[in-house]
Amino acid sequence: MPNISMRAKETPSSPIRKLAPLCVQAEQAGKTVYRLNIGQPDLATPQSFMDGVRKSTIEVLSYSPSQGLPETLLSLCRYYAEHDIKLTEDEIIITIGGSEAFMFAMKAVMDPGDEVIIPEPFYPNYRGYARLVDVTVVPITTYAEDGFHLPPPVEMEKKITSRTKAILFSNPGNPTGVTYSEKELAHFVYLAEKYDLFLISDEVYREFVYDGAHMSILAFDSVSDRTILVDSISKRISACGARIGMVASHNREVMEALLKMAQGRLSPPTFGQLGLNSFLSSPYNRTEVAAMIEQFHRRRDTVYSEISDIPGIVCKKPEGAFYLFPKLPIDDSEDFARWLLAEFDDKGETVMIAPGSGFYHTPGKGSDEIRLAYVLDEDVLVRAIEVFRCGLAEYQKLRSPLKTIYR
Amino acid sequence: MPNISMRAKETPSSPIRKLAPLCVQAEQAGKTVYRLNIGQPDLATPQSFMDGVRKSTIEVLSYSPSQGLPETLLSLCRYYAEHDIKLTEDEIIITIGGSEAFMFAMKAVMDPGDEVIIPEPFYPNYRGYARLVDVTVVPITTYAEDGFHLPPPVEMEKKITSRTKAILFSNPGNPTGVTYSEKELAHFVYLAEKYDLFLISDEVYREFVYDGAHMSILAFDSVSDRTILVDSISKRISACGARIGMVASHNREVMEALLKMAQGRLSPPTFGQLGLNSFLSSPYNRTEVAAMIEQFHRRRDTVYSEISDIPGIVCKKPEGAFYLFPKLPIDDSEDFARWLLAEFDDKGETVMIAPGSGFYHTPGKGSDEIRLAYVLDEDVLVRAIEVFRCGLAEYQKLRSPLKTIYR
Repeated sequence: MPNISMRAKETPSSPIRKLAPLCVQAEQAGKTVYRLNIGQPDLATPQSFMDGVRKSTIEVLSYSPSQGLPETLLSLCRYYAEHDIKLTEDEIIITIGGSEAFMFAMKAVMDPGDEVIIPEPFYPNYRGYARLVDVTVVPITTYAEDGFHLPPPVEMEKKITSRTKAILFSNPGNPTGVTYSEKELAHFVYLAEKYDLFLISDEVYREFVYDGAHMSILAFDSVSDRTILVDSISKRISACGARIGMVASHNREVMEALLKMAQGRLSPPTFGQLGLNSFLSSPYNRTEVAAMIEQFHRRRDTVYSEISDIPGIVCKKPEGAFYLFPKLPIDDSEDFARWLLAEFDDKGETVMIAPGSGFYHTPGKGSDEIRLAYVLDEDVLVRAIEVFRCGLAEYQKLRSPLKTIYR
Repeated sequence: MPNISMRAKETPSSPIRKLAPLCVQAEQAGKTVYRLNIGQPDLATPQSFMDGVRKSTIEVLSYSPSQGLPETLLSLCRYYAEHDIKLTEDEIIITIGGSEAFMFAMKAVMDPGDEVIIPEPFYPNYRGYARLVDVTVVPITTYAEDGFHLPPPVEMEKKITSRTKAILFSNPGNPTGVTYSEKELAHFVYLAEKYDLFLISDEVYREFVYDGAHMSILAFDSVSDRTILVDSISKRISACGARIGMVASHNREVMEALLKMAQGRLSPPTFGQLGLNSFLSSPYNRTEVAAMIEQFHRRRDTVYSEISDIPGIVCKKPEGAFYLFPKLPIDDSEDFARWLLAEFDDKGETVMIAPGSGFYHTPGKGSDEIRLAYVLDEDVLVRAIEVFRCGLAEYQKLRSPLKTIYR
């Protein structure tokens, strides 16, 4: 039998995927598992989106233009303008989810061996996209104690080498919920100008901001030729399965490079584009999103209040997205996550959590942290956090008797 | 302004894309342009597919499993069984079009710098996918005079080096319509066993075979751990915009590698999978495809008979797909294609053709060839070929006066 490629062999499985079989076993054994691990919104996709798909009158489901359907691009320009982001139709490409947008953005501005700086903990798929295009990830560690806000520019500056081509970040952040202030973004801008870098900004959680306002990297005019926006409708309108994202830039050369890549894969899915256009053309779309965000805001407040009551936990209030990234009084959150599924239950119930290590690039980091997603109804969330609290207490007794006594 | 990546700069635009603005200008000037250049079926997508999308009762459009929806995978197994291809559900991954299937297949079995042998002329996007994963394309030239059938194995053998990891081919072939015989496929099998290679077989035109039967590479049991099937519903059921393809193999290690890649991009589009499942579950699906194929069969016969009547053209009757790849009595088919759009008309009508050079990897090849797609109604095709014939005669007079006189 011939060998598969080394790069395929060396691709690791993520910690969360190793937990999946345990979750299945727990459920088959009759346990209720509250899934606090997933980044998949639970709310219904807006009716206007679904109508755009269901009522379409297409006869031949042909390729759309590689850049996207003209009417959807136009609707997107309107949408961005409503959010104070000025983009013309030729500055946007509709991609196959945010996934493709990342891959395109990295490939457009980096060659094999080039380096991209990313604040960690970060969305694990960033690493997968970087590997796909042979780009080296250089992490800047951020900390639970700081609410995962950025270190001073001088700390970030230390990571820059002659191979550094870009800084990539998500704002608001997955997995931490951190939302960068104008001052923090200005630090990125300062570094980009000083070291001739691109800034790739993942703003898929743009509207999930509960304290203060969100600022797009595209708002910084002085770096308009250095900024690339990565976006997606997956979270924003609960349409993960549509596989519709966007990549946008004011830099013409970047847009030309992105368009050639888009042509290479022919077109993004038509139905998702029709749904998006219908949603954006609906007079109710802003109200619908506002209601969705309000619900997440309440959940954030509830979960944060429950979590911050648990002794020994370090967790600042996250400003956005739908995640918390608490630091726990334990040593090995992968072991804890496995134990919760395999051995623990509270009245027949347990929780599934995402171990922190999978979100770090630096080896060893995150072993005392986890990501919790609040994509369940509020009353269910309250119960889930209660189960989590009981599990944590029991696990501490079992695994770290001394720590618990001396705390 | 920072530099974009070298690889982005070096990505060429295809010859056909350079023609697009001329086509737009011709149409704006009031000319009718018959598009013989595109590989996009014109027939209606089956009703059962559209019903699967339009009547779906999804409330939350969530990510599907990375491998694909279980019900769609099950339907695909049934479909393959009907075509004498034995695949279990865990031997198939649903991809985002055939495009992603190629990229995954190449990446799973080849490292940067490895070589893949591809008979040329070939589908130009193969080169794009190969570039994306840093794999070197090594072409085996085939000829119009042979109907683009393969050279003897000894000729193919000359191309194999220590870096050769796979042979990739489409069967039936885009752009030539060639359909390989069992004997030709056995040559690939012989080489794969002798030199420890993978065989990546693009069978998206499986059912578009008009003379004889199609044989899948998966039918060769002796190489079942070396074969990877690339597939797509785009052409087969006129659903290009669904972005649904497949990659399949009996090799478990390959499947594990492919699944990790699939997880890295989260999921294929949900609506396309629902449509496909609905289509495959419809009792009419075989009849619908048979009617579609019959229509293409008639078109093939019509276009071939018209084309082979034109003096100086070399074109064997293609057995499959919906293309012809004639060799013309001219020197520069890119110039001819431009001229047809920019300068020629016959009663206000002209044709758009795909220059042959874009389908070759060897520099200079294909400059006297073109690809014609028969994705128009039969009566329109007859008129389009008539316009083409007039154009060719006039172009020959203009550009190659001596050749025409001495012919």
